[in-house]
Amino acid sequence: MVDILHRVGATASPDAVYTALTTIDGLVGWWTEKTSDASDDVIRFRFDLPQGEDGFDMKVLETVPGKLVHWEVVAGPEEWIGTHVRFDLKQEDDYTIVLFRHEGWKEPVEFMYHCSTKWATFLMSLKELVETGTGKPAPADVQISNWH
Amino acid sequence: MVDILHRVGATASPDAVYTALTTIDGLVGWWTEKTSDASDDVIRFRFDLPQGEDGFDMKVLETVPGKLVHWEVVAGPEEWIGTHVRFDLKQEDDYTIVLFRHEGWKEPVEFMYHCSTKWATFLMSLKELVETGTGKPAPADVQISNWH
Repeated sequence: MVDILHRVGATASPDAVYTALTTIDGLVGWWTEKTSDASDDVIRFRFDLPQGEDGFDMKVLETVPGKLVHWEVVAGPEEWIGTHVRFDLKQEDDYTIVLFRHEGWKEPVEFMYHCSTKWATFLMSLKELVETGTGKPAPADVQISNWH
Repeated sequence: MVDILHRVGATASPDAVYTALTTIDGLVGWWTEKTSDASDDVIRFRFDLPQGEDGFDMKVLETVPGKLVHWEVVAGPEEWIGTHVRFDLKQEDDYTIVLFRHEGWKEPVEFMYHCSTKWATFLMSLKELVETGTGKPAPADVQISNWH
């Protein structure tokens, strides 16, 4: 089992970051404009790629206001299914620190290398959103390679 | 043992990326302006931080032109010493793909979360350098948090 880990800090309140992680309006602002509520506490994230629409469904397992958001991937690419995504929040100085984990990958496949970098750019988009009001969600996300 | 993994692709030749990873001029252009040759195949990277100068010494273990750069950390923060940094290069379409590993961390400490995100922003700086001629090396690097 291998994990993707990241740490970013935003000059915004834990509540503002928590809202960006737990509301459709917030998620639309930094990850993908194609975010919607599905049934049973599942959030649907979709992306338009050259090969067609792709994406993930995340089941919200646990939320603690201002402190934690924890999802399980219930649909998406095979490598993602059953993995967990966690955002632990804490305040330090004037920053809200986001400790991010995408954990439970079975193998460190090349797609995991890609997702690690891509998560970093999306977490920077989250930081921009809560600091300035404008993030870089798909389809205007940062392109990192031929895989987008 | 836990690893940091990343994948970026740059529209430049493998030789151009290899040069950016193996020459002082190249390294100065994307990682830190305070890069210098030390003795015994060691490259010295330094950063000016609020708490003073900090950095890493990397011993070059292996290089294969256009394909591989492999370093061992021989001086720096305790968590980094003995870890290895690898850049595997390959060509795909019009891109040179960089598969990056910073491997051999003993524990997934918070500093590792930070370094993972920071490596992503520096690899994006490497991509910018080889694509446009200008990267974002320290001290003009992307700030990701209160830890810089």
